Amino acid sequence: MSNTPRWSRRGLLAGTASAIAGATLARVGHAQTAPAGTPTAAQPRPLPPYVNWKDPNQMIVHTATTIETKKSAFGTSIITPSDRLYIRNNLPAPDVSIVANRDAWEVSVEGVRQPRTLSVADLKGMGLETVATVLQCSGNGRGYFADSPSGTKWTVGAAGCVIWSGVPVRSVVAALGGLADGARFMTGTGGETLPAGIDPKSVMVERSVPVKAMDDAMLAWEMNGQPLPHAHGGPLRLVVPGYSGVNNIKYVKRLAFGATESDAAIQKTGYRMSPPGVKGDPSQPAVWEMDVKSWINGPTSDGGPVKAGLVQVHGVAMGATRPVRRVDVSLDGGQTWHEARFVGPDLGRFAWRQFVLPIQLQPGQYMLASRAQDSRFNWQVETTPSNAGGYLNSGWRSHAFPITVA
Amino acid sequence: MSNTPRWSRRGLLAGTASAIAGATLARVGHAQTAPAGTPTAAQPRPLPPYVNWKDPNQMIVHTATTIETKKSAFGTSIITPSDRLYIRNNLPAPDVSIVANRDAWEVSVEGVRQPRTLSVADLKGMGLETVATVLQCSGNGRGYFADSPSGTKWTVGAAGCVIWSGVPVRSVVAALGGLADGARFMTGTGGETLPAGIDPKSVMVERSVPVKAMDDAMLAWEMNGQPLPHAHGGPLRLVVPGYSGVNNIKYVKRLAFGATESDAAIQKTGYRMSPPGVKGDPSQPAVWEMDVKSWINGPTSDGGPVKAGLVQVHGVAMGATRPVRRVDVSLDGGQTWHEARFVGPDLGRFAWRQFVLPIQLQPGQYMLASRAQDSRFNWQVETTPSNAGGYLNSGWRSHAFPITVA
Repeated sequence: MSNTPRWSRRGLLAGTASAIAGATLARVGHAQTAPAGTPTAAQPRPLPPYVNWKDPNQMIVHTATTIETKKSAFGTSIITPSDRLYIRNNLPAPDVSIVANRDAWEVSVEGVRQPRTLSVADLKGMGLETVATVLQCSGNGRGYFADSPSGTKWTVGAAGCVIWSGVPVRSVVAALGGLADGARFMTGTGGETLPAGIDPKSVMVERSVPVKAMDDAMLAWEMNGQPLPHAHGGPLRLVVPGYSGVNNIKYVKRLAFGATESDAAIQKTGYRMSPPGVKGDPSQPAVWEMDVKSWINGPTSDGGPVKAGLVQVHGVAMGATRPVRRVDVSLDGGQTWHEARFVGPDLGRFAWRQFVLPIQLQPGQYMLASRAQDSRFNWQVETTPSNAGGYLNSGWRSHAFPITVA
Repeated sequence: MSNTPRWSRRGLLAGTASAIAGATLARVGHAQTAPAGTPTAAQPRPLPPYVNWKDPNQMIVHTATTIETKKSAFGTSIITPSDRLYIRNNLPAPDVSIVANRDAWEVSVEGVRQPRTLSVADLKGMGLETVATVLQCSGNGRGYFADSPSGTKWTVGAAGCVIWSGVPVRSVVAALGGLADGARFMTGTGGETLPAGIDPKSVMVERSVPVKAMDDAMLAWEMNGQPLPHAHGGPLRLVVPGYSGVNNIKYVKRLAFGATESDAAIQKTGYRMSPPGVKGDPSQPAVWEMDVKSWINGPTSDGGPVKAGLVQVHGVAMGATRPVRRVDVSLDGGQTWHEARFVGPDLGRFAWRQFVLPIQLQPGQYMLASRAQDSRFNWQVETTPSNAGGYLNSGWRSHAFPITVA
């Protein structure tokens, strides 16, 4: 378990037994009635126009602003291609005209000794770094909570691993004379056009993270070797490695360092780890760092039968802000475990790693599960306690799923 | 310089002085008349239908089977996205119907103790590995040879860095009882449909590499996290890390180990390092391992002016079969050098690395060059001697280009 504060360690323990039973039944039932990754609607929804460049066969359209990668669409080559990467926007994207001249986009940097507004062109002269990170929606795995918290029922597909290029925030801050006194939080503000007639604070996308996150953060203009797509925050996105998706501000127009968190609703009451049924408030932990987590993507993820014999069980494992050091795979729902092998290059502590367990399987029923361990020997939790928002579900038991070997 | 045999070390030395003069003038002249990466034709050719999913703005269509990535299209995030990756086919691709059922594609494995025909489904059960490699056409850089050898005048864009997933060839060989006696070469045969009425040996794509290449080779079904695109060899490609593009057999239908090289023309007389004007024959070294190489992609690659001040000079560097350990950048055409810094994760010895040199530049004219060094302290050569086919040009001087800082 990470050192991120949680609303209740006691709640975790108390809820474990019932959550296990519920989640396991839910998964088995799911696999019996519909293949994983299939929308329950009779007809899948088409991609909305702003992301019609994505591969429609690989995506599940929950709504126009919540679009999931099918589990079967995850490959084994570490990187999630942009046209298979999930979409989750808290507001509709700003007009696409903002990417007509990417270098002209501006971000105001405040809470430094020499505050300045910088264009992307300015930023490109200030430094260059490249980092691979897991981008994961705070609500990824919500669909596996047994008590069905409200919100999009993501399973595993509100996540991907991508490579960013941009300038380290620390380089920008250094060029502007360093942080002003008293900085405890780094606040990013998105450039979305706000709906008229509503208190801006109630809808704006503005998130604060602890200032220590600055050490790894980046203002990124490129993703996976291409100018950052508009739908993913281009021309410029604040990337906060190891922190859940909402903290990675799209169309970032303001980056401010200060003593207090934003008072925007999305920070003040939204994205809080509050107990089920309890409204979020600033006394509850914010949804920030992710947890150590893994899941299995194959040899099948659609419930289809697997051929008996030597089978390659594979998936992804992440340590959030730490390297992942080990992954175990279970074929019997967690009664016994086998250590898996990592495959492919290590893209750094913020990326996920592919793992594989080659194993001889006889015909029969198996319940696949995986659990990852980070470099500090923290194991992925068996069950994440439910919370009002359905955030940060990393429990291995609820991610388990059955396969048939024939 | 690598330990790959070359047709003439003496030729390299003798040709250096004139090649330098010619190449440097050619580059300056090129930059004065047309931006790098711009086709000389007034209207760029459209993408042929079989690759109409590529980004037309990022590609130079030389012919329907030779399509180059624009230098300005290389990002800084290591991976080359599939829709920006170059195309070079020796024959038209087979019918696209072969990817309708990818798992059914078959490859015959010969020269092992238990020869067998294996489907992609079989291969997926036998192992899983992931490797990042530079895929580079043997003729990349041909356009920089001063004596203008015939063939597509690629500059730097017949190359990319991609991530493959598949089964290691060594795992397949082990599962089939190991190599039969006497194996000296690994030969891959492509599944292209051959034109009727012509000796198959004269046109088929069949290449042999030394059997030692088996240790790193892979039968790959995935590239960059997606099923291998048909245009890049899907459903199945033989990937030979560190070896030039032609050795990475698309639509591989036969993998044979034996005592001799293929007698197909593409191996026997084609892709040989023969002196200018001399036809290839088996006595000349084959085009196999690539050389240590680097080039600069920015801050500008289209000849446009760069703003004076702090500038990030960046590019890519590869060691072919060895890690690259250092890159130097010159701003004065190689008179003085500055050591650059690597950026981003290291994807392994077959991948390229991004490098950057942050430097303050006053207004003026500069000639940008880079030279890489591999883990055995071999420097990228200053000038690659020309050869009949215009292959394997890695000379740093001919890759230099001028910029104006204003």
